[in-house]
Amino acid sequence: MTTPFRTTRRVEFADTDMAGIVHFANFFRFMESAEVEFLHSLGLSVAMPWEGQRIGFPRVSASCDYFQPARFEEVLDIAVSVLKIGSKSVTYEFDFTHNGQMIAHGQICTCCCQVQGDHQLESIEIPAGIRAKLLVSQK
Amino acid sequence: MTTPFRTTRRVEFADTDMAGIVHFANFFRFMESAEVEFLHSLGLSVAMPWEGQRIGFPRVSASCDYFQPARFEEVLDIAVSVLKIGSKSVTYEFDFTHNGQMIAHGQICTCCCQVQGDHQLESIEIPAGIRAKLLVSQK
Amino acid sequence: MTTPFRTTRRVEFADTDMAGIVHFANFFRFMESAEVEFLHSLGLSVAMPWEGQRIGFPRVSASCDYFQPARFEEVLDIAVSVLKIGSKSVTYEFDFTHNGQMIAHGQICTCCCQVQGDHQLESIEIPAGIRAKLLVSQK
Amino acid sequence: MTTPFRTTRRVEFADTDMAGIVHFANFFRFMESAEVEFLHSLGLSVAMPWEGQRIGFPRVSASCDYFQPARFEEVLDIAVSVLKIGSKSVTYEFDFTHNGQMIAHGQICTCCCQVQGDHQLESIEIPAGIRAKLLVSQK
Repeated sequence: MTTPFRTTRRVEFADTDMAGIVHFANFFRFMESAEVEFLHSLGLSVAMPWEGQRIGFPRVSASCDYFQPARFEEVLDIAVSVLKIGSKSVTYEFDFTHNGQMIAHGQICTCCCQVQGDHQLESIEIPAGIRAKLLVSQK
Repeated sequence: MTTPFRTTRRVEFADTDMAGIVHFANFFRFMESAEVEFLHSLGLSVAMPWEGQRIGFPRVSASCDYFQPARFEEVLDIAVSVLKIGSKSVTYEFDFTHNGQMIAHGQICTCCCQVQGDHQLESIEIPAGIRAKLLVSQK
Repeated sequence: MTTPFRTTRRVEFADTDMAGIVHFANFFRFMESAEVEFLHSLGLSVAMPWEGQRIGFPRVSASCDYFQPARFEEVLDIAVSVLKIGSKSVTYEFDFTHNGQMIAHGQICTCCCQVQGDHQLESIEIPAGIRAKLLVSQK
Repeated sequence: MTTPFRTTRRVEFADTDMAGIVHFANFFRFMESAEVEFLHSLGLSVAMPWEGQRIGFPRVSASCDYFQPARFEEVLDIAVSVLKIGSKSVTYEFDFTHNGQMIAHGQICTCCCQVQGDHQLESIEIPAGIRAKLLVSQK
């Protein structure tokens, strides 16, 4: 069991809504951005050339539980873990905390796809080199 | 069992991402907007004055399964159902289709709250008048 | 001089920020969406196949003056006019009003481009067929 | 004449659109976020308590010229300058570059306002303490 990848995110004015808190849909942008930072730390990304083809990871499902509101200018701590690696899919888990208090918990399941020039997506088995990098970080 | 509330949404250019499809986080905005249209049809909203207090419905959890990509200029059909009404919470279900093909399925659980002037939120039991309106539409 | 194209837009919860008003950046999404509706009325779009090539209209400049805040659930009236048609560019003007009161005034200048498969953009003269359709609506 | 405040911003997947580039409206979010970072460097913000009242800086106008597209994962350099300080207004200028190449140039004019509990905004003269901090950075 490995320790999760950790990053932070400062809440911007445009992230808030008229309730004075981060709009719930923005947590999904925050998760994806943290996922990309995690992948960068492995030399990967969510959209990249790989062995002569264009690889992408469109989302199959996403969910989030909200425990406490997050507010403008707060710096959220985000922990990213690889929960599960299937033959074609990768599932991530995200914990958002602020001053040690749980803010939100989310999951995103992505599917490895080959991206065609016309934006068509075809699911493929995760290439061995990508799988090897992800396995090192699996929870 | 009642028929779901139905609305539509045209995909805008700003809803898409570099994969050429609607960015997954935007489905949560689409769900909330459809929820508001549904509530409007009952004379309600997600943020409104009610019997002398300010009522809001912050989100407790949200999830979405993605089956097919949605693309620019497509008009999505959205069916909204009330899945469950708790003492303080309301859970909605959303089906997105395009030309009869399933695009995405989502759920949002909201919690009835009293909104203070300083943006503090306190959960309360759903007022009887609101509950009565929602019950009529329960699945 | 022609009458402007008119459409409406209901302010969504996610459009607001913690100041309780529509976040200023969202007016640019509103403008683009109104522009697309206007183009649709002419049988055009901002991204479309045209005589065997892929045409797009990336933005060269955009501006907005804000007179009054817009708030959740308000239905904004938007008037779209074609201000100027250059050899490669089209400039639109947008007036946002609510209950007859001026909310905002914006301009967007777009450049006609050929879109390559690899997302590269090359500016081109506006094809005659597109120009003819736009000229009819020029202010 | 002072040197501008400098910050950076990594382009996220959600910032892009189907043209494969940063959606033009997002540059306005980028500007506001850079403005907040600049204000933080002075001990200020766009929404803050100040001498017993709640101060905000809603936008009066905003504009942007786009020179080159910005793409996913690029780290943009942003230079923020105070262009003009009026009795009630502050105008900022933003230069976006990438690898030394000009990407975009924007301006935002904000108006100092007292924010009421009910989200009503009333323009006021910029308090002397805030003005003094801003003047130090004026171009």
